[in-house]
Amino acid sequence: MSLDDLPTAIVQTDPDVVAGFAHDEARLVQRSTPAAVLSPRDTDEVAACLRAARAAGLTVVTRGAGTGLAGGANAPAGSVVLSTRRLDRIVAIDVEERVAVVQPGVLTGDLRAAVEEVGLFYPPDPGSVAISTIGGNVATDAGGMCCVKYGVTGDYVLGLEVVLADGRVLRTGRRTVKGVAGYDLTHLLVGSEGTLGVITEVTLRLRPAPPAPATVVATFASLPDAGRAVERMSADALDVSLLELLDATTLRAIDAHTGMGLDAAAMLLVQSDQPDPTATLAAVQRACEGAGAVDVAVTTDVEEGRQLLEARRQALPALERLGDWLLDDVCVPRRAIVALVQGVEQVARAEGLTIGVFGHAGDGNMHPTVIFDQQDPESEAAARRAFDAITALALDLGGTVTGEHGVGRLKAGWLARELDPVALDVHRAVKAALDPEGRLNPGSVLGARR
Amino acid sequence: MSLDDLPTAIVQTDPDVVAGFAHDEARLVQRSTPAAVLSPRDTDEVAACLRAARAAGLTVVTRGAGTGLAGGANAPAGSVVLSTRRLDRIVAIDVEERVAVVQPGVLTGDLRAAVEEVGLFYPPDPGSVAISTIGGNVATDAGGMCCVKYGVTGDYVLGLEVVLADGRVLRTGRRTVKGVAGYDLTHLLVGSEGTLGVITEVTLRLRPAPPAPATVVATFASLPDAGRAVERMSADALDVSLLELLDATTLRAIDAHTGMGLDAAAMLLVQSDQPDPTATLAAVQRACEGAGAVDVAVTTDVEEGRQLLEARRQALPALERLGDWLLDDVCVPRRAIVALVQGVEQVARAEGLTIGVFGHAGDGNMHPTVIFDQQDPESEAAARRAFDAITALALDLGGTVTGEHGVGRLKAGWLARELDPVALDVHRAVKAALDPEGRLNPGSVLGARR
Ligand SMILES: Cc1cc2nc3c(=O)[nH]c(=O)nc-3n(C[C@H](O)[C@H](O)[C@H](O)COP(=O)(O)OP(=O)(O)OC[C@H]3O[C@@H](n4cnc5c(N)ncnc54)[C@H](O)[C@@H]3O)c2cc1C
Ligand SMILES: Cc1cc2nc3c(=O)[nH]c(=O)nc-3n(C[C@H](O)[C@H](O)[C@H](O)COP(=O)(O)OP(=O)(O)OC[C@H]3O[C@@H](n4cnc5c(N)ncnc54)[C@H](O)[C@@H]3O)c2cc1C
Repeated sequence: MSLDDLPTAIVQTDPDVVAGFAHDEARLVQRSTPAAVLSPRDTDEVAACLRAARAAGLTVVTRGAGTGLAGGANAPAGSVVLSTRRLDRIVAIDVEERVAVVQPGVLTGDLRAAVEEVGLFYPPDPGSVAISTIGGNVATDAGGMCCVKYGVTGDYVLGLEVVLADGRVLRTGRRTVKGVAGYDLTHLLVGSEGTLGVITEVTLRLRPAPPAPATVVATFASLPDAGRAVERMSADALDVSLLELLDATTLRAIDAHTGMGLDAAAMLLVQSDQPDPTATLAAVQRACEGAGAVDVAVTTDVEEGRQLLEARRQALPALERLGDWLLDDVCVPRRAIVALVQGVEQVARAEGLTIGVFGHAGDGNMHPTVIFDQQDPESEAAARRAFDAITALALDLGGTVTGEHGVGRLKAGWLARELDPVALDVHRAVKAALDPEGRLNPGSVLGARR
Repeated sequence: MSLDDLPTAIVQTDPDVVAGFAHDEARLVQRSTPAAVLSPRDTDEVAACLRAARAAGLTVVTRGAGTGLAGGANAPAGSVVLSTRRLDRIVAIDVEERVAVVQPGVLTGDLRAAVEEVGLFYPPDPGSVAISTIGGNVATDAGGMCCVKYGVTGDYVLGLEVVLADGRVLRTGRRTVKGVAGYDLTHLLVGSEGTLGVITEVTLRLRPAPPAPATVVATFASLPDAGRAVERMSADALDVSLLELLDATTLRAIDAHTGMGLDAAAMLLVQSDQPDPTATLAAVQRACEGAGAVDVAVTTDVEEGRQLLEARRQALPALERLGDWLLDDVCVPRRAIVALVQGVEQVARAEGLTIGVFGHAGDGNMHPTVIFDQQDPESEAAARRAFDAITALALDLGGTVTGEHGVGRLKAGWLARELDPVALDVHRAVKAALDPEGRLNPGSVLGARR
């Protein structure tokens, strides 16, 4: 069996078309033009695609929307891309049990809208919510701004249907709230970034819709002040549903981009979606003022809250106007956030680069964003050095090299630094158990085969 | 290397001693007398024990407190028992980041008390909380009454140290809130019931201490009435921290045991530990009364609440007075709870047995408890038939064969019925990847080797 035996409707080899499937949104990561793009329409066709690729001696990269930031969907040489774009059906929403069953190609925003219509809530909200897929979110265990209260994508995954490298179909998990029958293969596959199987169906836990959030925005004259406010809120375990930090560099970029009139060393954006947020809002305000906030604005008005959040939403677009960007994604213990951001400032000075930092302060998950000029080899080299220095700093601070974007091809080398040799060996053993021929997404996560 | 090379202080072979380590609390499960009991004092000694057992051609069963209800800690022929009783140190409690690091032999209740002293909360609360270990809880992904609000043990595990079958030491996970570097080996090991490695250290997420709970107790004239109340509370997603159901048989047994004067077709026990539970208590009361409750008692008094919960605590001791018991542990979609309990009633009538049902109604996780006479082969056969019929019924209702107690040796056959052949194959491949010689807990979870 070769690719020619697949239904012609699902195989594309037109160079112009396949070129559009060569890479995701990560910068500075190796890529090739895929031999073909396969767009199966159901699980059987996914299995046929995997068998055909195997017979043809090709490797397979699964692709959702290609919004990934780690090069995990980049095509290595000799690979086909398996796109989930036609697997885009919401199969079922069980309102009573609060469970949804969806195909991987469903856009996250579309699922959120569909469950909202029946009074339910699917919390995960990566910044890419409108353009990324549920399959991609599950494969990367995507986070977002909701995590401080609601956790990550994996916390909502009850079960999966997965096509293995050899075309066999695996079902994991269950539809009940609890269950311990056998190994937790579901969460082994969550976050496995397309290296262990192709996710073809996801069973998700839903929540009741929360009230509209109230919002607090606070500005600070120094970064450590903002850090102290975060520590206070975290120590008091305030019931906040969003807790984001923007540093001075990011604020300057946003100001230049939007004319919002932002001028501070740091800004915190906080939301609470409790039925009655009064006490929490007061505690947030106290935490910020106690830490020396220059200005604190509180609103329960939804539209006003949305406007206040606009600064956060403009962070990446604003930095993007300054040049090419290389986005990092590290997570440190909350008490180390200030040390991380100050370390980034030092790196920026040392390399003569602009590096904005923003992110999910409530979880210690920050996104230092290095601005550089891709046309200038020296600037690119400096950007790489800065990126490496920041990632190393996060490890030194007791953190991890990726909080939510994943390892992909961008950080395969870093995974080997975070894990000890035994852990790496066990990763390889698990990979070999599920994909003995190394057919799925070679080079990603675990790096090149040794 | 043989067992003789291990420090004598950690090896016991006295027949009287080793006999006490032959089995856990499960009934009707095969067991043998272990060749020796090994009680290592640190991770290095655990590794030495595993290497020695391997050299001596023995298999290894890890044992926490032996309170398991699935025969997972039962010794098969030709095995040694590795006891974690001397690995009983709370290594660190980081109050600020709300993280604890503990050895596996720490009793769950001791950890809960230690973190309570510093104003924190470790939620998992299996009925065995005072007598079972953290290691056993992690290895079985233990549940309890808190799950309806706080989830299961695995939800609190950030990272592990594990000694593999060949003596290598594996570290998984991290200490940060978020992180996606590599496969989720942590949760592959959580719930693996000692078949993939020996857990020697656990990093746990903690929570701030909640307020003391308020309590509601409601009795019903019919089981479906109680079921409707559960469905109402669940549909309204009330913020309850406990939601337990007792059926008529269990209530009769408790009444006979305690003289509490219980006489109802069903009882619901509900708690809420919100700062201000007023609205939730009113909603619980409305849900119960709306479903036709005979009597509803509400109290915010902690001592009174404790007394009201006493009935639930007496469920197993009361049933135990009626004869030998065989405790099942199934989980069904919440809407199927009434069908499950009614099905159990039919099975009890058909087999002429007493079967009490109680459990975690908020999660659909129930414990049908078959009473029989172990001296009477016919009664034992009937009990086994009843147990099988109930477990099959849970599967038919879209549930799972084990909600929280695990598969062990008791339900290895049932695992093969719940999982499809591909899933079983993948389980075996994962087992072979981590324990290629089948050295750890053979026969448990995956059954006899084929
Ligand atoms: C503007 C912007 C904002 C972002 N904000 C966030 C954020 O807040 N939080 C966050 O976590 N991420 C964020 N991201 C990163 C990205 O959106 C996520 O990683 C997302 O989950 C990727 O989804 P996708 O459908 O685009 O997957 P892709 O990029 O197509 O693939 C991502 C990885 O998953 C694998 N994969 C995809 N589908 C499947 C499948 N069905 N089966 C198996 N493997 C599969 C791929 O092989 C690849 O390794 C952002 C990206 C952008 C561009
Ligand atoms: C009265 C009573 C009430 C109970 N209530 C509940 C309840 O509400 N919820 C619930 O979930 N369970 C409950 N249980 C069952 C039991 O207490 C749990 O399964 C508990 O987690 C077992 O802990 P243990 O230390 O006794 O483990 P053990 O019984 O010694 O072992 C259990 C399993 O874990 C493995 N294991 C133990 N320690 C390790 C380790 N360090 N590394 C690797 N593997 C290990 C063993 O090999 C075995 O397979 C109850 C039991 C009793 C007797």
